[in-house]
Amino acid sequence: MSKVFAEDSVGIVTPQIAHFSEPLALACGRAIAEYDLVYETYGTLNASASNAVLICHALSGHHHAAGYHSETDRKPGWWDSCIGPGKPIDTRRFFVVSLNNLGGCNGSTGPSSIDPDTGQPFGAQFPVLTVEDWVHSQALLADHLGIPVWAAVVGGSLGGMQALQWALTYPERVRHCVAIASAPKLSAQNIAFNEVARQAILSDPEFHGGNFQAEGVIPKRGLMLARMVGHITYLSDDSMGEKFGRGLKSEKLNYDFHSVEFQVESYLRYQGEEFSGRFDANTYLLMTKALDYFDPAAAYGDDLAKTFENVKANFCIMSFTTDWRFSPARSRELVNALMAARKNVCYLEIDAPQGHDAFLIPVPRYLQGFSSYMNRIEI
Amino acid sequence: MSKVFAEDSVGIVTPQIAHFSEPLALACGRAIAEYDLVYETYGTLNASASNAVLICHALSGHHHAAGYHSETDRKPGWWDSCIGPGKPIDTRRFFVVSLNNLGGCNGSTGPSSIDPDTGQPFGAQFPVLTVEDWVHSQALLADHLGIPVWAAVVGGSLGGMQALQWALTYPERVRHCVAIASAPKLSAQNIAFNEVARQAILSDPEFHGGNFQAEGVIPKRGLMLARMVGHITYLSDDSMGEKFGRGLKSEKLNYDFHSVEFQVESYLRYQGEEFSGRFDANTYLLMTKALDYFDPAAAYGDDLAKTFENVKANFCIMSFTTDWRFSPARSRELVNALMAARKNVCYLEIDAPQGHDAFLIPVPRYLQGFSSYMNRIEI
Repeated sequence: MSKVFAEDSVGIVTPQIAHFSEPLALACGRAIAEYDLVYETYGTLNASASNAVLICHALSGHHHAAGYHSETDRKPGWWDSCIGPGKPIDTRRFFVVSLNNLGGCNGSTGPSSIDPDTGQPFGAQFPVLTVEDWVHSQALLADHLGIPVWAAVVGGSLGGMQALQWALTYPERVRHCVAIASAPKLSAQNIAFNEVARQAILSDPEFHGGNFQAEGVIPKRGLMLARMVGHITYLSDDSMGEKFGRGLKSEKLNYDFHSVEFQVESYLRYQGEEFSGRFDANTYLLMTKALDYFDPAAAYGDDLAKTFENVKANFCIMSFTTDWRFSPARSRELVNALMAARKNVCYLEIDAPQGHDAFLIPVPRYLQGFSSYMNRIEI
Repeated sequence: MSKVFAEDSVGIVTPQIAHFSEPLALACGRAIAEYDLVYETYGTLNASASNAVLICHALSGHHHAAGYHSETDRKPGWWDSCIGPGKPIDTRRFFVVSLNNLGGCNGSTGPSSIDPDTGQPFGAQFPVLTVEDWVHSQALLADHLGIPVWAAVVGGSLGGMQALQWALTYPERVRHCVAIASAPKLSAQNIAFNEVARQAILSDPEFHGGNFQAEGVIPKRGLMLARMVGHITYLSDDSMGEKFGRGLKSEKLNYDFHSVEFQVESYLRYQGEEFSGRFDANTYLLMTKALDYFDPAAAYGDDLAKTFENVKANFCIMSFTTDWRFSPARSRELVNALMAARKNVCYLEIDAPQGHDAFLIPVPRYLQGFSSYMNRIEI
């Protein structure tokens, strides 16, 4: 008997690969000669191709945003709470495209892919990418799929930055930009946390200057530490407190340094270990640099309103009260700049205890506001 | 010509060592057979020994809190802004004692000391200590110095926890307890940051299970990462932003992972490297565990008011608005519990942009409030 998926699930989905054989010029001055982008689609593109929505992923995300890869798949895609029939990004109306970014480690060409020039993994030779580079490659994917204009480009966190960059780089190709739990640029503290993560990876003796694959090893310790420190910033102090408090794994203290004593330690170590087994260290470095570099207002004398002067999109900005990675204040910077630039902008600040991660969680008020915005988009 | 110190400096100070040859029983069930405590004193003990103030240090602190060790010393002790003639802890009135805690790495017996039983450094064999253990050892130092009752026990951060523990463990021996930028216990997030720091050290291949001294190496990378992550939590997002913003070290981006690009990266790496050259990794682990374990209310069913029922001290609690490591809310927990227990408590919340580190900085309103409280203490 075949598994029955929930009515609001997109069900079984199959990743596809688009190959691009024209070189892509990058912000760093180099180019990628040829590359693959892996992507999934949910829903059906209408005849006028007016109902396409692009999903941009965050630091550790990928193309598998909704549905299941098989009937035995235990977990759906990472944004399944927001994509599907009747969900905020309603696949009865929209044709949804979700890709793994260039430089990723889930099927798109990235540092762990084989460099056709050498027959070896790119490793440290893979170029550093920027949010703009991603948007350029996503535009080529849109061409490939026959999508001249996106009904909406949508993303949370680093994904929100890509959505904003789309509105800036291709004003004619984005009707709506939805940036959730995002920011116009990183703060010094944000960069500092990224730097700790990078140093953890770079200083791991098994990193081998980025060419660890050739050595047959993984900088597991570095990746684990990077993920642990990242994870702390994704949760609010309160949500950590509620989830773990000062709960102990066993009845008494061990008075040593190795034992896992508090539940929060156990959770972090598990998260770190699990991540270090599935994510590429060079991709992690690359993602943190793309975050650090994102600063569209830099070219406009730090005037964010001026930066947005020529965008044509309508904007929906959402933030979460307990998010301290990209706090509501960072979203309000965007909203204020967009208002000053006389753009259409909706803003929703959602009272949620989960911190930055709230954008991945089906918080009712969030789903409601998100649905309400998406439902108004004409197709 | 000899150097002239500022009028409000305690001038040249000389560390002293007290040796204790009676075993000290510890919370972990083990004992230290014999040990040294290194300490400094500033000011003069009066005839009735009623003017003694104990300074308790925080994670990376030590006994050298004020003054200079020589005329060529470029930097004074770590709390020189608060200790000296006319300063909040006024050495014209008070006899100030500042020690390096047991387990430290600045002269008191700790993991890097030679274990007399083996002739080798203690390393991993050094017992895990608690705030209570420290307070017991400090009480023995008080006996050694002829101080039956402290006019005040004073500390910031982890030092504040020791001050609180003094009031709890030796209610008859503390007249005033001053706990600054402190908390009644760590939150899950606090523990999580400590756990990242510990894992950074423990996973450094040069840690050698704590016995790195025997191997002639230092787990420098681990200590550096631990300090970097710690340092982020000592500063506020705003103060980091003001200090570094998104300032670049050179004019343009490098598009690599190794270069120091943003000023905040350079600052953190410097802090981390400098620290890793002077601090003992085992002491760092020990300090973070003492922080994690501190939870005096645990023995009272988490009832903090009940915990303080039998204390006799008067309390001065101070916090800083932008401190997110031990936020004002954590200090208010203390104040509320002390009020519920009908104790005398003063509370001062100081508007300061510097985050947790503010307790080390001569913020005028802080110095003023601190002085005002200390000046009222009868001697």
